[in-house]
Amino acid sequence: MSVSIFDSFLTTSDMIAVFDDAAIVQAMFHFEQALSKAQADEGLLPAAAARAIGAVCKAQLYDIGAIVSAGRRAGSLAIPLVKELTRTVALYDAEAATHVHWGSTSQDVIDTAMVLATREALQLLDDGLHDFCGHLLALAERHLCTPVLARTLMQPAQVTSFGFKLVGWLAPLVRARARLRECAERALQLQLGGAVGTLAVMGERGPAVAARMAADLKLRLADAAWHTQRDEWVRLGLEVAVLTGSLGKVATDLSLMAQGEIAELAEPSGNGRGGSSAMPHKRNPVSAMIALAAATRTPQHAAALLASMGQQHERGLGNWQAELAEWPALFLSAHGALNALNDAFAALVVDPARMLRNIDALQGLVFAEAASIYLAGAIGRPQAHALLEQLTQQALASSRPLAEVLRDAVQADAALRAHIDLSQLDALFDPVAATAPARRLAERQLQALRTSSAALDSVHPFTK
Amino acid sequence: MSVSIFDSFLTTSDMIAVFDDAAIVQAMFHFEQALSKAQADEGLLPAAAARAIGAVCKAQLYDIGAIVSAGRRAGSLAIPLVKELTRTVALYDAEAATHVHWGSTSQDVIDTAMVLATREALQLLDDGLHDFCGHLLALAERHLCTPVLARTLMQPAQVTSFGFKLVGWLAPLVRARARLRECAERALQLQLGGAVGTLAVMGERGPAVAARMAADLKLRLADAAWHTQRDEWVRLGLEVAVLTGSLGKVATDLSLMAQGEIAELAEPSGNGRGGSSAMPHKRNPVSAMIALAAATRTPQHAAALLASMGQQHERGLGNWQAELAEWPALFLSAHGALNALNDAFAALVVDPARMLRNIDALQGLVFAEAASIYLAGAIGRPQAHALLEQLTQQALASSRPLAEVLRDAVQADAALRAHIDLSQLDALFDPVAATAPARRLAERQLQALRTSSAALDSVHPFTK
Amino acid sequence: MSVSIFDSFLTTSDMIAVFDDAAIVQAMFHFEQALSKAQADEGLLPAAAARAIGAVCKAQLYDIGAIVSAGRRAGSLAIPLVKELTRTVALYDAEAATHVHWGSTSQDVIDTAMVLATREALQLLDDGLHDFCGHLLALAERHLCTPVLARTLMQPAQVTSFGFKLVGWLAPLVRARARLRECAERALQLQLGGAVGTLAVMGERGPAVAARMAADLKLRLADAAWHTQRDEWVRLGLEVAVLTGSLGKVATDLSLMAQGEIAELAEPSGNGRGGSSAMPHKRNPVSAMIALAAATRTPQHAAALLASMGQQHERGLGNWQAELAEWPALFLSAHGALNALNDAFAALVVDPARMLRNIDALQGLVFAEAASIYLAGAIGRPQAHALLEQLTQQALASSRPLAEVLRDAVQADAALRAHIDLSQLDALFDPVAATAPARRLAERQLQALRTSSAALDSVHPFTK
Amino acid sequence: MSVSIFDSFLTTSDMIAVFDDAAIVQAMFHFEQALSKAQADEGLLPAAAARAIGAVCKAQLYDIGAIVSAGRRAGSLAIPLVKELTRTVALYDAEAATHVHWGSTSQDVIDTAMVLATREALQLLDDGLHDFCGHLLALAERHLCTPVLARTLMQPAQVTSFGFKLVGWLAPLVRARARLRECAERALQLQLGGAVGTLAVMGERGPAVAARMAADLKLRLADAAWHTQRDEWVRLGLEVAVLTGSLGKVATDLSLMAQGEIAELAEPSGNGRGGSSAMPHKRNPVSAMIALAAATRTPQHAAALLASMGQQHERGLGNWQAELAEWPALFLSAHGALNALNDAFAALVVDPARMLRNIDALQGLVFAEAASIYLAGAIGRPQAHALLEQLTQQALASSRPLAEVLRDAVQADAALRAHIDLSQLDALFDPVAATAPARRLAERQLQALRTSSAALDSVHPFTK
Repeated sequence: MSVSIFDSFLTTSDMIAVFDDAAIVQAMFHFEQALSKAQADEGLLPAAAARAIGAVCKAQLYDIGAIVSAGRRAGSLAIPLVKELTRTVALYDAEAATHVHWGSTSQDVIDTAMVLATREALQLLDDGLHDFCGHLLALAERHLCTPVLARTLMQPAQVTSFGFKLVGWLAPLVRARARLRECAERALQLQLGGAVGTLAVMGERGPAVAARMAADLKLRLADAAWHTQRDEWVRLGLEVAVLTGSLGKVATDLSLMAQGEIAELAEPSGNGRGGSSAMPHKRNPVSAMIALAAATRTPQHAAALLASMGQQHERGLGNWQAELAEWPALFLSAHGALNALNDAFAALVVDPARMLRNIDALQGLVFAEAASIYLAGAIGRPQAHALLEQLTQQALASSRPLAEVLRDAVQADAALRAHIDLSQLDALFDPVAATAPARRLAERQLQALRTSSAALDSVHPFTK
Repeated sequence: MSVSIFDSFLTTSDMIAVFDDAAIVQAMFHFEQALSKAQADEGLLPAAAARAIGAVCKAQLYDIGAIVSAGRRAGSLAIPLVKELTRTVALYDAEAATHVHWGSTSQDVIDTAMVLATREALQLLDDGLHDFCGHLLALAERHLCTPVLARTLMQPAQVTSFGFKLVGWLAPLVRARARLRECAERALQLQLGGAVGTLAVMGERGPAVAARMAADLKLRLADAAWHTQRDEWVRLGLEVAVLTGSLGKVATDLSLMAQGEIAELAEPSGNGRGGSSAMPHKRNPVSAMIALAAATRTPQHAAALLASMGQQHERGLGNWQAELAEWPALFLSAHGALNALNDAFAALVVDPARMLRNIDALQGLVFAEAASIYLAGAIGRPQAHALLEQLTQQALASSRPLAEVLRDAVQADAALRAHIDLSQLDALFDPVAATAPARRLAERQLQALRTSSAALDSVHPFTK
Repeated sequence: MSVSIFDSFLTTSDMIAVFDDAAIVQAMFHFEQALSKAQADEGLLPAAAARAIGAVCKAQLYDIGAIVSAGRRAGSLAIPLVKELTRTVALYDAEAATHVHWGSTSQDVIDTAMVLATREALQLLDDGLHDFCGHLLALAERHLCTPVLARTLMQPAQVTSFGFKLVGWLAPLVRARARLRECAERALQLQLGGAVGTLAVMGERGPAVAARMAADLKLRLADAAWHTQRDEWVRLGLEVAVLTGSLGKVATDLSLMAQGEIAELAEPSGNGRGGSSAMPHKRNPVSAMIALAAATRTPQHAAALLASMGQQHERGLGNWQAELAEWPALFLSAHGALNALNDAFAALVVDPARMLRNIDALQGLVFAEAASIYLAGAIGRPQAHALLEQLTQQALASSRPLAEVLRDAVQADAALRAHIDLSQLDALFDPVAATAPARRLAERQLQALRTSSAALDSVHPFTK
Repeated sequence: MSVSIFDSFLTTSDMIAVFDDAAIVQAMFHFEQALSKAQADEGLLPAAAARAIGAVCKAQLYDIGAIVSAGRRAGSLAIPLVKELTRTVALYDAEAATHVHWGSTSQDVIDTAMVLATREALQLLDDGLHDFCGHLLALAERHLCTPVLARTLMQPAQVTSFGFKLVGWLAPLVRARARLRECAERALQLQLGGAVGTLAVMGERGPAVAARMAADLKLRLADAAWHTQRDEWVRLGLEVAVLTGSLGKVATDLSLMAQGEIAELAEPSGNGRGGSSAMPHKRNPVSAMIALAAATRTPQHAAALLASMGQQHERGLGNWQAELAEWPALFLSAHGALNALNDAFAALVVDPARMLRNIDALQGLVFAEAASIYLAGAIGRPQAHALLEQLTQQALASSRPLAEVLRDAVQADAALRAHIDLSQLDALFDPVAATAPARRLAERQLQALRTSSAALDSVHPFTK
């Protein structure tokens, strides 16, 4: 595997395969094949030569390990690959061999290969997002009226609906899916500039060759070679980082809600998943773990792309190479996180009863604000606020529910009794009723998100 | 000034003013005013109360230093600001004072204030980009046929046109200007969610209040409170980072071309700019310096935004605050860089003669590839390649121009003489002729960039 | 204040003052004064000139705002400062004015000023660490036998002692205090190299002048000018980042233990600290918030120092300036975090009863491993393991304490009864007894940490 | 290879092997073997069991791919490894199998394995530094009197000695070698804490077992388990980052001096190294490229370590895993850079004649300051400064050497002639004489660096 041992369990086999040595080398051969074909079609070389070249543009014919290893000596993977390809073509057709890689440069083939691999990577992310958004949509619909504590600054604050919380997780992921496609449309472009980006060797035919190659490889035709202008490419990488950031947000909340002492959510167990033989009560949130690891690492990988942008003149010294090496990490992390969360959410254990118990444990204090607002209508805002403050202290000191303390206070005070409807007051302390505002907002958003998701599902931008 | 002494000379007074204490506090007051007005319009509070509140939403009425300082104790700037506002309203209208900030939360006012300040910041960047793109366009048109060395891996490679190089710098900046507007359209949105994002206090009127406020402040109406879903906001920050990366690329090339030993470009001098009294020959590239400093720092500031995305539950603990504190740095750096490069390019010293001399100093070796291709047509590719290799060595050993060595070789060899037209051969070594492919590509791109720029100029998205 | 509004509440007034404009400018004057004095002592200039210069090296004599502002134009703060100093000296002594800044360079005065300011910053951190280590030591001693849940992967795991946990927080901070001093000893060195680091202008007297200045300013005499060799300086900055990382670890645990649903710790309240008027039950962990914000931002600031190391030739272009601008942020964050945690820990609310309740809520499952080991001695390891697994399921299904289920099982089975001492078995489920291994380790470490701290207290390395 | 294809040519096979799957797995087996042996020696398990376990602690007996793959499912590599080890031991000795991994936890074995691998990695860096310092020492001695331009802000400034410049590169590397050893002494420590760091399972024997294991594995005995206190470990990683920063500084200067237009240095050629078939004049600085790529990436990898420090409670969720995955990158980059620069400097092409020509091309303006100082002694500082300014303009306007213009001016002016010795004046323009101050400083430093290096060579801290 072309990742380190501790990278390995933070990602997926599918994404490892996308950026694997063999896949990159094969993508480089695709470039060479498309180049010679386009040049033949433009009359720059004989059709027979293009066929001879194309016939051996198959990674399995070559000793990939040797090419990689020679690439280390040469300072570029393209040099030994082109050499081996030329040698192989020459075995069959010496004249055709002189046309290999003609008019192109190392960076053309390497960048284009990375673009082709990245298209595969984006397909994996898009598929993963499709699934994850589906899980979240279904859960959100199911839990629109499930009361759960909303928490601010890591403290219980008020009551919200779990469905509302799920919509909060979902919306940025639907956006991420759409934005990744937008960025990809701009960034998945052919690299073809020749030695210094001017396509000089091919004379006036350069642009036409590029157009043919782009069509052949189903890539965008760039306005110009982007050898040292990496902005669109970096934007795509950053968009992946934003996705991972949004997945990290989900994982943060999941890990907090899955704490043994809170226990509102749990990752599915069974099949040895997250268990601990020594500690039978433990159900480790291993999916959250993977997503959190991704979110911890990714900002730095994104920074590395930005730090590589100042590429000198017409080909960078060190920074281009740095960017190439950092690029896959963004996708490996994102897909690892996405896949892990899909595992978790496909069978997420939601405990509405525990959610209620956690609300109850706060003695109704989370409803104090609502009660204060209701009382304000009756006795004025300052009085209501002062009364609630006093009763809250009383509830805490006596470990009694605030609703009870408040009811007692109203009943004990004729003035209050005159203005206040006890049944309305009780209703304020009903957790399900308290979810209403959240539910209303969530429903409206869900509608829109369902529509957006369906629209995304109907188009397949990464199909080759 | 609200930046450190060593930040100060890397940015502009205009951008410092945008994120200055007073500006942020005033923006917070704008929020409070708009909130009460919208609530009055929705019948949630008396119109008179809204007027009373609005009348004192003026930063100059308050001791800003004291608010900032109290904010440090309270852990949020909004707490003392709301307290002071309430106190001040109460001086005139005790009942109105009970409506201040009603139904809102600290993060609503702070985030919205940052959005309002950021809109100003984007206007500055957009203006700066307008100017810089103008300079680059004009220079590119002027230098379409100016030969200059193209360099790869920091080594002279071939001849290109300086206009082509300028277009290479320009294109990503035109893109940056467009993309910043796209991101802004999505990210400049009202924050209004109340304590936990559900607008619960305002009951069913919450969404309508939000809609009115958004219209009043000319901000996008968010699909939902984005208290802990920062993706659109972070995308905007990252887009600024990409801009700075592209500016850093220009500065990198400028600093390299301005080296005393290369001297193809120089920043304007005079008025003490970049001079050195001790070393009269020095003309320090101080604009490049500022842009390079920005490009060195910005990837980290971008990473900080990404690292802050995992905000817990309904309000982050530490990460929201980290994001707020890091945010202005991205804009301060970008505008510093942009402004510095505008200074430099408004009066850039271009030395086409020196560009030619630098080409000449390479004895025509940069034309070896072109010569080889021409000869290949006559004597076959392998023979041409071998011949050139031999003559190149000869040219280097004898310190003679390759063109001369080649001409001698052709004349000395009857076989060659028969196939080769010496005048065509000479033409291959003409630097101006060698710019043709670059020029053609540049012209086409310039046309498109001029159109895009004009389209951008005709819309003013950041006007309040 | 020389920091942004949202930086302000994440740091302290003391640290802001250290890197304030006035402080840096005064430190630059200290350099100029010490330079002329040392040169006079070496006979390079008249003693009277040195006195004349020294007499006006007082920041309060100058318009600092104007110097800062002119520094922005000049690209270096030193240029206008030296100019103003020269002009001022000349008012009294024209000849002396010709000696100002003689043989020195902008970077000498700026770097040395930063070193002098940084020494003050380190004193603040050292003092803060002294206090914080004191709080932790006292708490650790008090809570050596206080049982608390140990948690792994954010799940309750076993029982430990809260004192042990406190020692875990303390030890890295004692190390940090010692390491900061080590790094400071190497990094707080005079910068004096002249234009290109060779002290050429001062001829053979250069090294002697440097030695005198270092002694005067109580700084290390560097082996060589470190204009573009920033390794020791960067190491010091990174050490501050490690300190903030260790503070962030404390804040992470504090924020988790202070969650309303866990409530084992709380930050002190009162004086408006962390309260919420709308939500009376909330006690926001504002100290943890500040430390977490610091820990979120600091890795990026540290990266910026590293990213600035590749400074070109004898003076960097952009990277030196980037480093200067990023430097204070590390100290501002660290002191903000330290100060906030000192506030919290000076009156930390520890709830041992709640710690016990949280243990009890797990039905004794956290003791399953200990029970298994004990049973293994009696009936063999595989049998013990299988038995415990079965009984654990039973306990969970019946919501009964494992101790009870186990006792019943033993009593119901003659074979088991023969081998197992029920009172010993019960003891395994005693939380206080379960702290023994932790307590033993903690005691030994505490002893060593007390000794190290005392040794650190007895030396005062940052005194001027 | 366990690195990506584009990582591969930026590092070395030796360093890849250190962190390879097989190496890590073998190191984990070393831990298990040492654990059982130490426990047997402490009487916690039968000596025969320890022997049975030790006998199969050989990576080659296992299907490493399967273990890695199962580790991905389990969320920890240790779980399947311990399972396979237990199964294998049981084939020979069922009772011994019950003692495998006893009292230990996944993090104990993984962290210790990383420590063991890191020791190998440090040996490689130490060896590489030994060689590189040797090359720099030899070159510095050879070039003490070789004049070369010193450059500030990427502009020629004054004349220095190339030996001085080499010493500037060397000194931080000698420091890096020493500091890496200091950090390693503290960070290469056994991890052994059991489930929650308290060694509870082993009762009072825990510390003794740890002491035996540390001695056996030749690791430092930690004061306490460092499961979630990563400060010493992170310091070691950061020290590697500082090393890479200093290597990046060398590479920056090398790449600038190797530019075709400056050509003072060149990387060795031949054997296809850095050549370009299409452009025969190119000699690409591929070693600088690799070191620059390392310096571009490393700040981010360092930041990732810092960002992972806030590990929750007694075992981190996601951050520990992130740190593990990022760790090798620091060493892979550092060794790649070091190895590349060793290649370059073992046969560095230094061109003193070109260095002189580059000085000469500046018409003696780099000596203006020295001339000014000399003249000041004769005619007063202000007059000297004014004169030089005027003559400099004259020299530039007429393209004549300043020395000549100055000599003419002196001869044309009787007043000047009276005070100025023309031969002394001429001497000021002698590049070799101008190296004197640099040479003196370099000699003194070289002496010290030779001593330090010898001291480092005499100790071998990383020998197993």
